Amino acid sequence: GWVRRRAAMHSASKSWLLLSGFVLFYIIYLLFGALVFSSIERPAEDELRRDTQRLKEAFLNQSCVSAATLELFLSRVLAANKHGVSVLRNSSSRSNWDLASSMFFANTLVTTVGYGHPTPLSDAGKAFSIAYALIGVPFTMLVLTACVQRIMQPLVLAPVGLLQRSGLKPRPATVVHFLLLLLAVVLCCFLAPAAVFSALEASWTFLDSVYFCFISLCTIGLGDFVPAARPGQPYRALYQVAVMVYLFIGLMMMYLLLRTFHKMADVHGLTTFFQLPRCEASLMDDDTEPIVGNDPTPPRPKDRPATKPLDPGSQPSYNSINKG
Amino acid sequence: GWVRRRAAMHSASKSWLLLSGFVLFYIIYLLFGALVFSSIERPAEDELRRDTQRLKEAFLNQSCVSAATLELFLSRVLAANKHGVSVLRNSSSRSNWDLASSMFFANTLVTTVGYGHPTPLSDAGKAFSIAYALIGVPFTMLVLTACVQRIMQPLVLAPVGLLQRSGLKPRPATVVHFLLLLLAVVLCCFLAPAAVFSALEASWTFLDSVYFCFISLCTIGLGDFVPAARPGQPYRALYQVAVMVYLFIGLMMMYLLLRTFHKMADVHGLTTFFQLPRCEASLMDDDTEPIVGNDPTPPRPKDRPATKPLDPGSQPSYNSINKG
Repeated sequence: GWVRRRAAMHSASKSWLLLSGFVLFYIIYLLFGALVFSSIERPAEDELRRDTQRLKEAFLNQSCVSAATLELFLSRVLAANKHGVSVLRNSSSRSNWDLASSMFFANTLVTTVGYGHPTPLSDAGKAFSIAYALIGVPFTMLVLTACVQRIMQPLVLAPVGLLQRSGLKPRPATVVHFLLLLLAVVLCCFLAPAAVFSALEASWTFLDSVYFCFISLCTIGLGDFVPAARPGQPYRALYQVAVMVYLFIGLMMMYLLLRTFHKMADVHGLTTFFQLPRCEASLMDDDTEPIVGNDPTPPRPKDRPATKPLDPGSQPSYNSINKG
Repeated sequence: GWVRRRAAMHSASKSWLLLSGFVLFYIIYLLFGALVFSSIERPAEDELRRDTQRLKEAFLNQSCVSAATLELFLSRVLAANKHGVSVLRNSSSRSNWDLASSMFFANTLVTTVGYGHPTPLSDAGKAFSIAYALIGVPFTMLVLTACVQRIMQPLVLAPVGLLQRSGLKPRPATVVHFLLLLLAVVLCCFLAPAAVFSALEASWTFLDSVYFCFISLCTIGLGDFVPAARPGQPYRALYQVAVMVYLFIGLMMMYLLLRTFHKMADVHGLTTFFQLPRCEASLMDDDTEPIVGNDPTPPRPKDRPATKPLDPGSQPSYNSINKG
């Protein structure tokens, strides 16, 4: 009773403290990345931009245009364009590596969306991208998983319970719940944001916007549509931050959907049938590792001490090690 | 004894049959995607290529080049380039949507790498990309998970057991094993392939190649480096198939690394400390969902029938539903 309830309250408050810490550190990590990328890439970009402008002026000043000079000019224009530096007049002033854009780039790295506009120009930028993603990608997965862990109760466990209390059997309840959740995610994370994007981006149709949302939240990130990339975009930094928040919430919902589907597959015995790992919290150990299914040791009792030495003759497995 | 061993053998052969089925279907799915993308995008690409060539000829034939005509010409050149159609003479003949390239694109979609070179031009291509990824991304995750499930025994469970038999305690054994596995993955999936790429791609330095491998296997896929994209690449189709195999094996090893790390974190009590879901096969249910920790029902015995109605007063949760 009392001790247990106090422990649960302590656990819940620790849980929220941890989550706030994770999210805060995530934002700090993005800001840190933005500062480093901005300071590494800005000089390289400025130099490339100056070179490209000089090249364009020289091309315009020559008396006649031969096929060979045009070829050379175009090859250098395309090379500069690949690094996000456009020769067009109306786009010459804006940088791809101001603070908000650098943060946007850092965000596409750690979420593994990776639009590829812009991409680092310098070797230092490439090396830093590797180091940054090496820590950032697992950390972002951790933060997203921690967030999903906290929204499982209100968005999955409680609604499934409600459906069961209203008369549905456990299995149909999980299916009905999954379909409702899917519908909500399609509406709130794909169709509604797509409507906003097609209103904000002049050249995007509604299909383009849905395609962008889908390609982004699957973390494919082709980069043929990147928001806030149009020259002269008003409130560009604010727009980029809003897209970052959208990506974070959208990815969280995709994780939630995936985990709910995994749990549903567990309940319906699909993971066991396909001999795949169960979602988690399985009471039946032996089903999950069919290859070590000929392990002769019986399922271990819950309270076995962690330090008990393992029987050297038994099939070794992670499952035979209890946490302390 | 006998019944159990026969069941295990049956399970193992079913396991390999399933895996072969998955991999075969994966290849068929990629081929199907390649055929559809190729047939949808090739006409659109051909038209864009013809337009761009006509534009270039018209630009070369004019007597004087004004800043305004150059601006217009360049904006159209860059728009075509965005869709993978280059105006440069040496790249005019090759298509981005031949069968091997389309399969490569289909592969970057379903693995969520998404380099973005090429990207679909037509609305039909975009719509098909959504539908294709909708099925392909979860299916690829399933195939990769199923493959990892089968290599867990030889690459994780057996080596950890070996380390334990050679005198290490369970916890240090998991750490030593993880570090060895990490080293092997860095060598075989990053450094060795990077050496091959820097030999095959004339313009890539070794850093560029490591950066490409890293950005690819994290599924970030920026697309600033794409193999086999150089015009006149010999054995291009073969090279693209080899890169696809590399991506598949590399992603499998990344999944394995991630799962091994997750299991190690379980063993060290880290997942419990951070109140995150355990990897799987947990014997201690209550730790995993701290928010429903005040659930008064005791852990359910293993053989509880699936159809038994749930106590309507108890905290409803997925954990309270046994599979049938």
